[in-house]
Amino acid sequence: MSLVLLRHGESVWNAENLFTGWVDVPLSEKGLTEAKRGGELLREAGLLPDVVHTSLLRRAISTANIALDGADRHWIPVRRDWRLNERHYGALQGKNKKQTLEQYGEEQFMLWRRSYDTPPPPIELGGEFSQDADPRYADLGPALPRTECLKDVVERLLPYWESAIVPDLRAGRTVLVAAHGNSLRALVKHLDGVSDEAIAGLNIPTGIPLCYELDADLRPTNPGGTYLDPNAAADAIKAVASQGR
Amino acid sequence: MSLVLLRHGESVWNAENLFTGWVDVPLSEKGLTEAKRGGELLREAGLLPDVVHTSLLRRAISTANIALDGADRHWIPVRRDWRLNERHYGALQGKNKKQTLEQYGEEQFMLWRRSYDTPPPPIELGGEFSQDADPRYADLGPALPRTECLKDVVERLLPYWESAIVPDLRAGRTVLVAAHGNSLRALVKHLDGVSDEAIAGLNIPTGIPLCYELDADLRPTNPGGTYLDPNAAADAIKAVASQGR
Repeated sequence: MSLVLLRHGESVWNAENLFTGWVDVPLSEKGLTEAKRGGELLREAGLLPDVVHTSLLRRAISTANIALDGADRHWIPVRRDWRLNERHYGALQGKNKKQTLEQYGEEQFMLWRRSYDTPPPPIELGGEFSQDADPRYADLGPALPRTECLKDVVERLLPYWESAIVPDLRAGRTVLVAAHGNSLRALVKHLDGVSDEAIAGLNIPTGIPLCYELDADLRPTNPGGTYLDPNAAADAIKAVASQGR
Repeated sequence: MSLVLLRHGESVWNAENLFTGWVDVPLSEKGLTEAKRGGELLREAGLLPDVVHTSLLRRAISTANIALDGADRHWIPVRRDWRLNERHYGALQGKNKKQTLEQYGEEQFMLWRRSYDTPPPPIELGGEFSQDADPRYADLGPALPRTECLKDVVERLLPYWESAIVPDLRAGRTVLVAAHGNSLRALVKHLDGVSDEAIAGLNIPTGIPLCYELDADLRPTNPGGTYLDPNAAADAIKAVASQGR
């Protein structure tokens, strides 16, 4: 079974060094180019998705649209779900990363960014960057997150993995998941059995398809997955690690 | 029940005056602008689709993606089906409209373009512009069209209307159908009960959402539908009528 993960490229808020989370910002010019490159890599590898799953955020949706068009697979079935969304960054959404680091100090900053189970403070209801009036989440009711740690993302992602993605894989379809840094880290944690501690050090580069081949028990036969452009992936992983500095 | 029809804008082959049919050409720059305008019209009217249906051709898919992004509805569920494709233009696919007119004469040309039940000659299997090796139609087998008249389009469209679009309407969803000149003419013929003769004179302009309000029997309460930009629609209808001259 073939599973392809694709993290969206740079958004306009990545470029401005702001915490984004569930705020629905578009890709930057660089992000559009990264999505196009993702499609070229799929096409060159002959790795052709039969179905695509995306979050409800336009940076992942646009990445999927552009990459699939480039791979001549724009016509495949599409499934979308909030459970593939980026981690909700709580009250930090819309805040500058550098200023947050200066204001709260290195220890608190890294705890929010990288600890497995410490969420940032919750976002205020009705605030500029909250989602409580967003029609796409109307069905969630009180389950709508107001902040999340990575553990929360794992817990809300796995029901969708089991109920929506696994059935596509078991039906023999090559599945593309176009999503976000933290929702894909949550998925990789599950697939590779990464510990709560080790996941802090795992970064997934943007725009480079990461392919898993899974056995009948949904265990990777290539643990850690295989990047379609391994050199670019190695360089990008270093760059992500230094983000916010 | 609210149904919104959106015909894709200019493709690169429209611009070159070639018969397109099922050949999967991209939108031109003008077509991209038309799609964006379609999204603005939806947003300005507050007409917000809950679900989108498209053909399997990128000019309709891109139009839907761009218009929905502009209306902030990029996150809605997507359904795609070959039954919403443009009319298959048979052996004329890839041919210049003006040259075809000169070669075959006015009478034959207009018969192929506008008669209800006279399809062009079938396309050769394995030809440059045929779809018999296209993976998106692999499930069709021998049902894959090699040419179509408008009557054929009506017959292959209606099962999808009944089985996929009507259930969305009955569930109370505002439905956007992003498709093509002839698949939308086929749908309008059905909705408005247009005769086989009168449908020849009906043109749907590109990029301007056409809205129908339907009663419980799926009959339009606004027969003929309502364009979101009636003046632009009237001008465009005149332009479409003179296409190929």
